[in-house]
This record gives sequence, C-alpha cells and structure tokens, in this order.
Amino acid sequence: MHYVVGVDIGGTNIVVGTVAEDGSAVHGVRSAPTHAEEGPEAVLGRIARLVQVSMAEAEKAAGIPRRNIVGVGIGSPGPLDRKRGMVLLTPNLGWRDLPLRQLVSEAVGLPATLDNDANCAIYGEWWVGAARGTRYVVGLTIGTGIGGGIVLDGRIYHGTSDVAGEFGHTTIDSTGRLCKCGNYGCLEAYASGPAIAARAAEGIASGVDTRLPEMVGGDLSRLTAQTVYEAASGGDQYALEVVRDTAKFLGIGVGNIVNIFNPDLVVIVGGVTMAGDQLFTPLRSEVKRRAFKPAVERCRIVPGVLPGTAGVVGAAATFHHRVGDEP
Amino acid sequence: MHYVVGVDIGGTNIVVGTVAEDGSAVHGVRSAPTHAEEGPEAVLGRIARLVQVSMAEAEKAAGIPRRNIVGVGIGSPGPLDRKRGMVLLTPNLGWRDLPLRQLVSEAVGLPATLDNDANCAIYGEWWVGAARGTRYVVGLTIGTGIGGGIVLDGRIYHGTSDVAGEFGHTTIDSTGRLCKCGNYGCLEAYASGPAIAARAAEGIASGVDTRLPEMVGGDLSRLTAQTVYEAASGGDQYALEVVRDTAKFLGIGVGNIVNIFNPDLVVIVGGVTMAGDQLFTPLRSEVKRRAFKPAVERCRIVPGVLPGTAGVVGAAATFHHRVGDEP
Repeated sequence: MHYVVGVDIGGTNIVVGTVAEDGSAVHGVRSAPTHAEEGPEAVLGRIARLVQVSMAEAEKAAGIPRRNIVGVGIGSPGPLDRKRGMVLLTPNLGWRDLPLRQLVSEAVGLPATLDNDANCAIYGEWWVGAARGTRYVVGLTIGTGIGGGIVLDGRIYHGTSDVAGEFGHTTIDSTGRLCKCGNYGCLEAYASGPAIAARAAEGIASGVDTRLPEMVGGDLSRLTAQTVYEAASGGDQYALEVVRDTAKFLGIGVGNIVNIFNPDLVVIVGGVTMAGDQLFTPLRSEVKRRAFKPAVERCRIVPGVLPGTAGVVGAAATFHHRVGDEP
Repeated sequence: MHYVVGVDIGGTNIVVGTVAEDGSAVHGVRSAPTHAEEGPEAVLGRIARLVQVSMAEAEKAAGIPRRNIVGVGIGSPGPLDRKRGMVLLTPNLGWRDLPLRQLVSEAVGLPATLDNDANCAIYGEWWVGAARGTRYVVGLTIGTGIGGGIVLDGRIYHGTSDVAGEFGHTTIDSTGRLCKCGNYGCLEAYASGPAIAARAAEGIASGVDTRLPEMVGGDLSRLTAQTVYEAASGGDQYALEVVRDTAKFLGIGVGNIVNIFNPDLVVIVGGVTMAGDQLFTPLRSEVKRRAFKPAVERCRIVPGVLPGTAGVVGAAATFHHRVGDEP
C-alpha cells in the first residue's frame, strides 16, 4: 500500500499525518505551532521536520517502509495558484507569491501537491468522513475565519482561478456587521470563532446576566467561542442565546448553499461543532425555514467526523487523487 | 442537419422556435400568451399548436423538412423531476405533479426533454450567446422572479433533486424586505421586476420628485420596472436612483456568486438588461467592492445577447445535448 503525508497549514498550528492511499489509516499525526511571524523559511523548516517525524513514526508504529511513502499533499490558506503550486497571498501567515509546493517538495525529497486548506478539509470529509458516499457536498470550515469547500462528483470544484468556495465572504446582511475584509454583513463577521466571541462580549457590555466574565477571570479579551460553548453546555442562558444566534446566522448561510447547490449533504467542520445539538438543531430549523422544501428534504446537515485531521487526510487525498495539473 | 423545437414556458408567454443542432439558426419563432388560468389542457393545446406552427414556418421559410426535426426541448418553471419529466409544482402556472414531458411528446409526436426554464436560458447563452466558450458560467434570469442557472464544463449543474441555482431566494439581508416565498431579505425581494416597481412606488409615496407617476397616468399600479428604465434613460433622477439601488442589490448577489463559484462569466438575462450601462456600471462596481480580487479579475459580468430566445435556444440545446436520463 502507498502512503502520502498530508500537511495542513493553519494560522495557529501545522498538522501532519501519514495517510494510506485507501484512506483506511492515518499514522504519525503530529502538530506544532505555525509561528508565521518567524517568516516562511522557519515555517518551511518546521513543515519538513514534522513530515520526517510523521514518516518515522509511521515506520516505527505501523511498519510502513519509507519507500511506500510516495508524496506530500499540502493544504494551505489561499488564495493560491494550484497550477504553479504558489501561495499568492495569505494575510494570516504574511506570505506572498511563495512557491510552497516546490519548496516543500525539495525540503522533503518527495513530489507534492498544493490545495486550499478548506478544500482539503471538506475533501477529507468526503473521502473518509461525514460526507462519504455523497455526490454533491458543500462544506464550511469554521475557525478564525470561515472557509468553504465544494466537492461535486468526487472532485473539488476550484473555479477558474482557485478561489471558489469563499462562503465566509458572502453577504447575508448587506448593511450588517463590518467584516475584516472591509465589507459589511459577511457570514464570517457573524459566525467565525472571533465573531461569536465579539457578539458575546457586546451583550456582556450591555449588562446581560451571564457567567461568561467569571469564566475568563473578568478579562473579556480572553473570551473565545469555546468559552461560549462551555457556558452554554453548563446552562448559561445568555451563552445559549449566543449559540442560537450563531445557529441562525449559519442557518442563513447554509440555506443559501442549499438553494444554490441543492447538495446531498452540508458538512460543518471546526470548533463550532463542539456546540453540538445546541447549534445544529436551531441551525437545521433556520435552513428549513429559508430554503426550498425539495432541496431541504434531500440535504443532510452534519458536523464533520474527523476533528483535527480532516485537513491532513484531505490534503493527502488531493495527492492520491491528483488529476494531472500537478507534477 | 437535425433540428429541435425549443419550448420556453413562462408565466406570461410561451415562446417556441425551431433550432439547428449546431445552434447556427433559429426558425419560426412564435409566441402566445400562456393563460395558465385556463388549466393545463388548454396550455398544452397551445404548446402543441405553437410547435406545429414553428415547424411549418421552418419548412416554409428555410426549407427544413419535417423529418429533420427530431425532438422537442421544454423549459418550464419548477421545481421539476427531470428524470420522470414531471413538473412538481409551479405556483405561477398552478401546475402540480404534471407529466409535462410525456404530454408534450404525445401531443406533437416527437420525443421530448424537460428542464428548468432558467437553466435553459443560461444554457442557451452558454451554447450560442454571451457565455459561449466559457468553462464556468453562472447566470441570473430576472423577470417576475429571479431564477438562476449554473453551467460547469458545458453541463447544466442540477444538484441532487433539480433545484440548484435558486439564487433569487438566497438571503442578502436577513432582516430585510419580505419575499413572496415568506422569508425576509431574498435577492428576489429587491431586484425582480415587481420588486423594482415596488421600491420605486415606495419612494413616490414618500413624495420624491419624479416623472414616474405622470408616465403611468397617475395609476401607480401600472408602474413596472420598464417604466423605471425608460424614465432613467430620459434623465429622471429618482428613476436613476432606483436603477442604481437595483444595481447595488444585484451586485451583492453577483458578488456572492463570484466568491462562491469563481466563474469565468456571470450573465444576466431578462428585462432588467434594458437598463444597460446605467445598471451594469454600478453593478460591476459593487461586485468589485465585495468580492475577492483574484475572482473579480477573472470574471466578466455581462447582459445576455439572446433577448427573448435564450430560453428557446437553451431548451432545444438540452435536447440536442441530452445525456441519457431522458428517453
């Protein structure tokens, strides 16, 4: 059996793993902080070391010989130029026109492919996760930002210049909240991790009754979406309200996806899925209210089932299933 | 050369034409009021007569023998079940579970295909119109409602139950205008023909200075989007403002399309294109402001070039290019 090392580059962490060509196993999952502020060379060095460690661990723990590892699949924030293997621009990492595919390939001595991180995560869920066996799947990756991936007939849909799937920057409220991108009312401005925390903090500032300030020692700058989910799980009514509002906003975004793509499945990946049914029940209700019945009836809306590794598995899958525009 | 009769069924009119298999010619274009209130049998009778008239005209004017006409392509409002050739529900026409493909086929003695009217219009523009030669095209059809069509790699994207492309009912303002569908803030509630007229009438009611009331003899119920375009062309400042607002709303919807599909081209079909550059210039500006630069740079936004016949040509094309799920 052949293996590929999947590399998932995020703003906070890099995660790698050695993935079987049939998706049946992931060995040597390792992660390290990205520390993008140290510059691309430092990050590349870290990626190369993590890849080596993962391959060594796969050999040690599962007896996978190095010669069976045939390549590296890289998932990176974009925008990218896949054909040239370039990262054009990543505000979070500070990269610009970086030939990432070639640099990683040279550093580890294996051929490599490059795709968008969100595409990889959704492709991973399609390959061996929550969207397995579906024909048309659209996914959202919710973290610091909101990314998206579109898999149609088992292939990632990239659009004409690899920018497709930017659901985080679709408008759901044209005169609404200011987004980091400079526009008003983007889905990301309501339902990304930082946006969830910001909305919660606004309510606290207006004097609502909640345990949230106590949970962060009175320092609201430490408030995260995770704090909100934990408080909601503990029965904090205000935190529950913030989760329900999040569900409503995501429901509007997913409702748009359902009316546009009429997919078999929408998969939601990222920390927000920790909120569980408290999120998914009102989210599905909002979609049902907003989208067309014959589309809603055919669409399941589910959390991802590969937390932490969807991006790694999907990045490896893009190498396994490469179709020719990469070397 | 083979020919197919394209049939475009709208809420107001039925249009037919006899279309060459290479798209090079359309003969015998004829239309008649739909009069859906007379029931499906009456409408079917009208369709059958129009098809006969179109074929006779094609024979008379262009010498196309009847035996060269191999089928009928039907475009109808939906939702549809293409596989079974059924119209499931059309609020505008009052049809429910109507086996339209079979009924038309029997009435004219030719095999038939059935697809969504908006899909047909955009497919027509892809085949021989404004989107010719493009790989990824998304289109909006703007009239009484707002429909949409998605053509990827030369094939209509239908989704899992033929509902894909309902851009008119995507939310651009979650707490905004009430839409006929019961939700708030759908694109259609801002930029369909009736929505344009309704927004114009609201301003008039609030006392703005405009020639619009005079143009409809003081009867605002006669105000249409076309009245607004005409007044705008004539320099009416308030009408120009209504057109610019329309451009902004459409720009938000198109911006979302650009960020989601990263298409080569967005084509806009329907009466609204009569507003010309007065609409398209601010529309393109809004898209540029809202969507990602590497996507905007690769996307042309253009009016359709087959006014009145895109649906007929596209319906015929769906028959010419049928891929097997129809008889």
